[in-house]
Amino acid sequence: MGRWEPDARGRMAQAALELYLDPGYEQTTVADIAERAGVTERTFFRHFADKREVLFSGSEQFQRVVLAAIEAAPEGAPPLDAVAAGMDAAAAALQSQPDPTFPRRRAAVIAANPSLQERELLKMATLATASARALVARGAEPGEAAVAAEAAGAAFRLAFERWTTSDEPLDLRALVADGVARFRALA
Amino acid sequence: MGRWEPDARGRMAQAALELYLDPGYEQTTVADIAERAGVTERTFFRHFADKREVLFSGSEQFQRVVLAAIEAAPEGAPPLDAVAAGMDAAAAALQSQPDPTFPRRRAAVIAANPSLQERELLKMATLATASARALVARGAEPGEAAVAAEAAGAAFRLAFERWTTSDEPLDLRALVADGVARFRALA
Repeated sequence: MGRWEPDARGRMAQAALELYLDPGYEQTTVADIAERAGVTERTFFRHFADKREVLFSGSEQFQRVVLAAIEAAPEGAPPLDAVAAGMDAAAAALQSQPDPTFPRRRAAVIAANPSLQERELLKMATLATASARALVARGAEPGEAAVAAEAAGAAFRLAFERWTTSDEPLDLRALVADGVARFRALA
Repeated sequence: MGRWEPDARGRMAQAALELYLDPGYEQTTVADIAERAGVTERTFFRHFADKREVLFSGSEQFQRVVLAAIEAAPEGAPPLDAVAAGMDAAAAALQSQPDPTFPRRRAAVIAANPSLQERELLKMATLATASARALVARGAEPGEAAVAAEAAGAAFRLAFERWTTSDEPLDLRALVADGVARFRALA
């Protein structure tokens, strides 16, 4: 959901994001990104399959953080508690990254492009499936695991959307916790 | 999520689905679909933007059914009750369509193609947003409306996936109701 790499990958991601905001995603080529990041196109393609993937380079690390926290949750914790701990860990990591403006600018690019929105949704759906699997590995019943993973994933998505679009600085972890509490209160 | 049109649109959708299953989505052209459905390519493009959209021709009607049921829910019904009524109406409509094998075959094509999965997720996300808006129009607090809409949408998705992949015939409405009950039981 954000940027996690401080190196050449990070430079390319920053360059891409700046260009996707101005002149725009459709108007930007891989050659433009490589030039701005000071790398060759070949280097770009060693790191990313295409210009869309630049925006999703943090997805794998995001998922690793979530799954590690699910696995580290106390034995016997209810499924929703375990997966909420995963989303909290991801929120903490996103908030503490070196460039806090990256997620917000990235979100603006994605909001403006349906094909990017689709990719973001697929990544979140993949995360929910992986989270449910991790809950089942901890002993949760599959149906309950799927529902807990969907609830926590949706809580994260709604919180993230508010966090990246708010005019004032908000605490992403608090927004996620509030969202999870709302799912718990459904009646 | 399925097929709703009995006419030329429906014929094209059937032809497309048959070809997407064999020889496959990637291998099929609009010309192939038009030929099999006995129409011109021009007719195809009057109905669908591209070969991907054929599979989503029922989305608008699906959304209309959901939103109408939300609006028709008893005054004062809790948001989750109202949106669950919407998903139940959609499940009933899907189960009673003329060709009950269509959703299952369609789901198989989508499961095999990430770009189709992405589109399906975007349609469901759009539906959740529209459902939340309909709940707010009924007087729900926006945060509660969003969570109820996400929960009911996820319950539908999980139920639909089970319904379209099960070896035995299942009752989609019962699966949706069970999923909603699981969200209510989250703690």
